[in-house]
Amino acid sequence: MAEPNRKWVLKSRPQGLVDRSNFEWREEAVPTVGEGEFLVRNLYLSCDPTQRGWMEFDTYVPAIPIGEVMRSVSAGQVVESKHADFARGDLVSGAFGWQDYAVSKGDGLVPPMRIPPGVDLATALSLFGITGLTAYFGLLDIGAPTPGETVVVSGAAGSTGSFAAQIAKIKGARVIGIAGGAKKCAWLTDELGLDATIDYREKNVGARLAELCAKGVDVYFDNVGGEILDAVLAHLADGARIALCGAISGYNDVAHMPGIRNYVNLIVHRATMRGFLLFDFAARIPEAIAELAGWAAAGQLKNQVDIVNGLENAPDALRRLFTGENLGKQLVKIADPE
Amino acid sequence: MAEPNRKWVLKSRPQGLVDRSNFEWREEAVPTVGEGEFLVRNLYLSCDPTQRGWMEFDTYVPAIPIGEVMRSVSAGQVVESKHADFARGDLVSGAFGWQDYAVSKGDGLVPPMRIPPGVDLATALSLFGITGLTAYFGLLDIGAPTPGETVVVSGAAGSTGSFAAQIAKIKGARVIGIAGGAKKCAWLTDELGLDATIDYREKNVGARLAELCAKGVDVYFDNVGGEILDAVLAHLADGARIALCGAISGYNDVAHMPGIRNYVNLIVHRATMRGFLLFDFAARIPEAIAELAGWAAAGQLKNQVDIVNGLENAPDALRRLFTGENLGKQLVKIADPE
Repeated sequence: MAEPNRKWVLKSRPQGLVDRSNFEWREEAVPTVGEGEFLVRNLYLSCDPTQRGWMEFDTYVPAIPIGEVMRSVSAGQVVESKHADFARGDLVSGAFGWQDYAVSKGDGLVPPMRIPPGVDLATALSLFGITGLTAYFGLLDIGAPTPGETVVVSGAAGSTGSFAAQIAKIKGARVIGIAGGAKKCAWLTDELGLDATIDYREKNVGARLAELCAKGVDVYFDNVGGEILDAVLAHLADGARIALCGAISGYNDVAHMPGIRNYVNLIVHRATMRGFLLFDFAARIPEAIAELAGWAAAGQLKNQVDIVNGLENAPDALRRLFTGENLGKQLVKIADPE
Repeated sequence: MAEPNRKWVLKSRPQGLVDRSNFEWREEAVPTVGEGEFLVRNLYLSCDPTQRGWMEFDTYVPAIPIGEVMRSVSAGQVVESKHADFARGDLVSGAFGWQDYAVSKGDGLVPPMRIPPGVDLATALSLFGITGLTAYFGLLDIGAPTPGETVVVSGAAGSTGSFAAQIAKIKGARVIGIAGGAKKCAWLTDELGLDATIDYREKNVGARLAELCAKGVDVYFDNVGGEILDAVLAHLADGARIALCGAISGYNDVAHMPGIRNYVNLIVHRATMRGFLLFDFAARIPEAIAELAGWAAAGQLKNQVDIVNGLENAPDALRRLFTGENLGKQLVKIADPE
């Protein structure tokens, strides 16, 4: 381990769009491994919208302290172990941060925890990781679409949204994806088989919803919040279910987050809006991975990943989520497994 | 029936606070009763915030047409019948409107439909009517508080709110009522036994919630929407349930209804916000009336009514809901039963 442990630490809390200047590059010694610990070599970083929140304020977890390594989910390989349950060569996923190496006691693992045999790391961090599992539970447990119902998914060309939309199709729903730009919209219909799309950059979301959902929206899987959520609230079917997964539209400027005004329609249409986090479904993750794997093997579930190379480019990769540049799961590749 | 059928018809759609000028007084002939119909003499009118919406726009029911009798729930007595199921003298509740007499085929009845024997009409229109039943199902089915949980009720000195707050106390919750003015707040603690109150006119709802609900709000029964809903959203406990019953704060100016910004906390706290209407619980109304009656008989549930006399004063009585003048259920008394 003569090489350094390269890392990005949080230098300042972002105002507006996350920026390279919010981070500081450091090169430190690779940490030593104590009894009951293992050393993991990070290979892929997962870029997730929720990281923007972690950088600025306390949410369901405390904010990242200034001067600490940038918090991130990643997939890596155990390169040294003094832990009974982990051996050199094991592939794991955890909150190991934006750095080459991390020491773990095995308690910071996140789904899928241990990379399933034969699964490549990009798939592990997307289809079987937070995005695939979040889509699975949010769509099925909260949205619970039945055949023929109309499902709308925002952020549909993002990783979670693309899985939610495809799972809704598998369940027999009519699925409308909201995404930014003609290219993403074409991908949603041509590649993923969605029934229709709305390009929010055309600024006619309400009118398009009225056109496409004359009988109202039965299920809305929301990744964006803000104006688009408000537009969908104006087009609910009776008994609609809204799964609140994220609100990326507001993450860059929470102080000026636009309010939603049409929530009164939740009463008129006896509708439910429920927020959720994957962690509450932990016990059911193995069953979810099995079902997702089956759909993928059957060609019913496509997994799009968008890979930026190099730890040094992690800040730019994260930023892509907020500028809408990514198609599918945004990852940073650091290295291949041994 | 030499006397006329006095009635208020809708003259104009209100802008802002509902006003006497939105109605026109008419005196017409009492309608004749056809086969399969009965004639009801209205005795008490129920004043409900939802009437404000009916006056202006389509909601879960179409807007009241201009020139038609003002739509209202009322309790009345059958004075003539050519309907097999209704006899002269029967006491019923229905959407009979702001008028002395209405003809019905028996299809416009609303809970409790037939006044339970021995129950006075004011109690029938409050405890066993829309407000008591709405509180019952919203609090128990959507809020579902468990002993020791913290329940917040807005519009707590209104009829629905006062029932919801008391039912939460019966279920062993710690209950905080939000109301306007020291008098109402004192009534909530001294007469109804609530644990604490917040006087929203002091404009410190957020600070008081932080003080009183350090561990967060488990259940919120919302009658008002707007800023108070947004303040509660900022103080949720994990797994919180919000029962959206009404949004009276915005009914007078829907176009400028303030948005709620803290909905993202629904994700952070894995909380649920659900709108409901009593009509969806119709099949369970008899069981609810039985349980409400039991609590009232045991002295656990007090029923406050606020009565304005005279059909001619109906517009002013309705207005009281929006100026906060009423304490408990606002009714208009027209006449006593035969």
